[in-house]
Amino acid sequence: MTDDIVLALTAGEPAGVGPELCLQLALEQRAAGLVVIASQPLLEQRARLLGLDVTLHAWQPGRAPAKGAGELSVLHVEGCASFQPGKLNTGNSRYLLETLTLAAKGCLKGDFDGMVTAPVHKGVINDAGIEFSGHTEFLQELCGVDRVVMMLATEELRVALVTTHLPLKDVPAAITPERLTQVARILNADLKTFFGIAQPRILVAGLNPHAGEGGHLGREEIEVIGPTLEKLRAEGMQLIGPLPADTLFTPHWLNEADAALAMYHDQGLPVLKFQGFGRAVNITLGLPIVRTSVDHGTALDLAGTGKADAGSLHTAIRVGEQMARSRKSANNSNAIPSCKVTGKEKSE
Amino acid sequence: MTDDIVLALTAGEPAGVGPELCLQLALEQRAAGLVVIASQPLLEQRARLLGLDVTLHAWQPGRAPAKGAGELSVLHVEGCASFQPGKLNTGNSRYLLETLTLAAKGCLKGDFDGMVTAPVHKGVINDAGIEFSGHTEFLQELCGVDRVVMMLATEELRVALVTTHLPLKDVPAAITPERLTQVARILNADLKTFFGIAQPRILVAGLNPHAGEGGHLGREEIEVIGPTLEKLRAEGMQLIGPLPADTLFTPHWLNEADAALAMYHDQGLPVLKFQGFGRAVNITLGLPIVRTSVDHGTALDLAGTGKADAGSLHTAIRVGEQMARSRKSANNSNAIPSCKVTGKEKSE
Repeated sequence: MTDDIVLALTAGEPAGVGPELCLQLALEQRAAGLVVIASQPLLEQRARLLGLDVTLHAWQPGRAPAKGAGELSVLHVEGCASFQPGKLNTGNSRYLLETLTLAAKGCLKGDFDGMVTAPVHKGVINDAGIEFSGHTEFLQELCGVDRVVMMLATEELRVALVTTHLPLKDVPAAITPERLTQVARILNADLKTFFGIAQPRILVAGLNPHAGEGGHLGREEIEVIGPTLEKLRAEGMQLIGPLPADTLFTPHWLNEADAALAMYHDQGLPVLKFQGFGRAVNITLGLPIVRTSVDHGTALDLAGTGKADAGSLHTAIRVGEQMARSRKSANNSNAIPSCKVTGKEKSE
Repeated sequence: MTDDIVLALTAGEPAGVGPELCLQLALEQRAAGLVVIASQPLLEQRARLLGLDVTLHAWQPGRAPAKGAGELSVLHVEGCASFQPGKLNTGNSRYLLETLTLAAKGCLKGDFDGMVTAPVHKGVINDAGIEFSGHTEFLQELCGVDRVVMMLATEELRVALVTTHLPLKDVPAAITPERLTQVARILNADLKTFFGIAQPRILVAGLNPHAGEGGHLGREEIEVIGPTLEKLRAEGMQLIGPLPADTLFTPHWLNEADAALAMYHDQGLPVLKFQGFGRAVNITLGLPIVRTSVDHGTALDLAGTGKADAGSLHTAIRVGEQMARSRKSANNSNAIPSCKVTGKEKSE
């Protein structure tokens, strides 16, 4: 394999927009090599349906993927039971998980430099009798790591979460010193490795409104978050907070920081989606592999119409490629960079 | 009294930036009549300190306030113990609450068409042995109403909250059908009365991430929020939701709505502050009076320097004036407007 970046791209739910977004990407020349992992007949059918002139090439490990306009390399996966746009089929679920497994194992083996995922539909996988709570948890288990971190990012803003898909009532008890420590260490380390930031500056939100207002509005900042951040600072991390969430997301703070760490889903993601809807990418940190994803769902109602916007998938691929390059360059360099990188990514 | 709008403006914490912001406003001509409620010697001392050439006029009920550049009407309040910028003094607390009481009672009597508040410092009032959890609660008690609603607004976005200053762990239990019903009714009614919107369209967030994702991430949407919204829709309200908070704050939804209703503080306010920091105004709905406020604190470190930005106070006054005018016009009109106002305020 050459020094070029090769990304695996899982086409996601066959009834959704994933397959056609992959085909849309193939209409233009790409900088990174892409290998779509999907049923080849599914891609052929969707291309015919939408009149997309894309030649599919069977890909094998070690081969350079096609990058030209109208060409797409495919790693075919058997077992896709139905191709109908908009119509979920529990019979597709094993096939779907196989695409994810092949992508992740290919990353671990070094066939791919990272993986990018088009959306899946959790409900239909669960309906098939398979426990599945999302790409993130699936990949965490497959890679055998204790903790991963969900981060959403646009060009301007990165927001990572301490807790993700929990009922709100379970959030306060989940904010433990252990979890916060793991999440902050992963975020800090991966901002260095995958984003080329020598000394990441991370804004940390409190759990309660006004970050507890000195204990008047909750004591988690005093008892858990504050002391944990203090210990982590002693490890050399630059953690600012705990800050009130409605103060943190203002220019005074954001302009000097590389990422924000929110305690829970709806504290951090509404701002991120407001700021960059359709341009956001979902990144899983803490894995031994690079993984990015679109920030939208399967959009069953748009599937087969050709109206779906490939913007978020474009961004996910671009960010995945940057992350893979940054890691390669970190691995190739024996010395710690001597200049401090403040503010934004090296690569910008 | 003429048909002109007269607003009471409480100067807030003497050690903070409130008094000097009031004086800064007085340097320019105003559209609405303003009566600053404060210690007159405090204002004189701060004007001297900052070299602001403002002539203070003692105001009496029924008189038209000064509007000219360099002129300011003042309702003097005794009992301000110290004037020193940046230095809190518990001896000022009774004086401070008296300024709020005079403003609110003046509104109830009809001397004022509304009140605008500069920031107070809750801590020093509590340290004085007085229970005080904020302007909002103080005015609620003074006006004798069961429920008020906090709404923050910029030119582009309005966000109201079902719960406000509660520790996060107490939020889920506070989302009851009773509270949600009261809050939605107040929000709906006051968007009509004070903002001239004939049929308000209100986006309602869920409590849990992804609005509970069909019960997988919490059941409050299914058991409490959904059924309550259904009942309220039967009263004729246009309530859209419960929506995932990170979907709600995107153009597709916001463009068609007049306000967003978040379940708790950090679900709604980070977006609002991100979108319009320094331009946001805090509005108390549900009172029999108009009340707006700045969205910042006392800024003790800036007090006496003349560096504080009067932008938010300007906005609070402008919005207070618009709200007062809208209510007057609603009171003067016997008929319900026959044309439907969609999207934004009549006055825009």
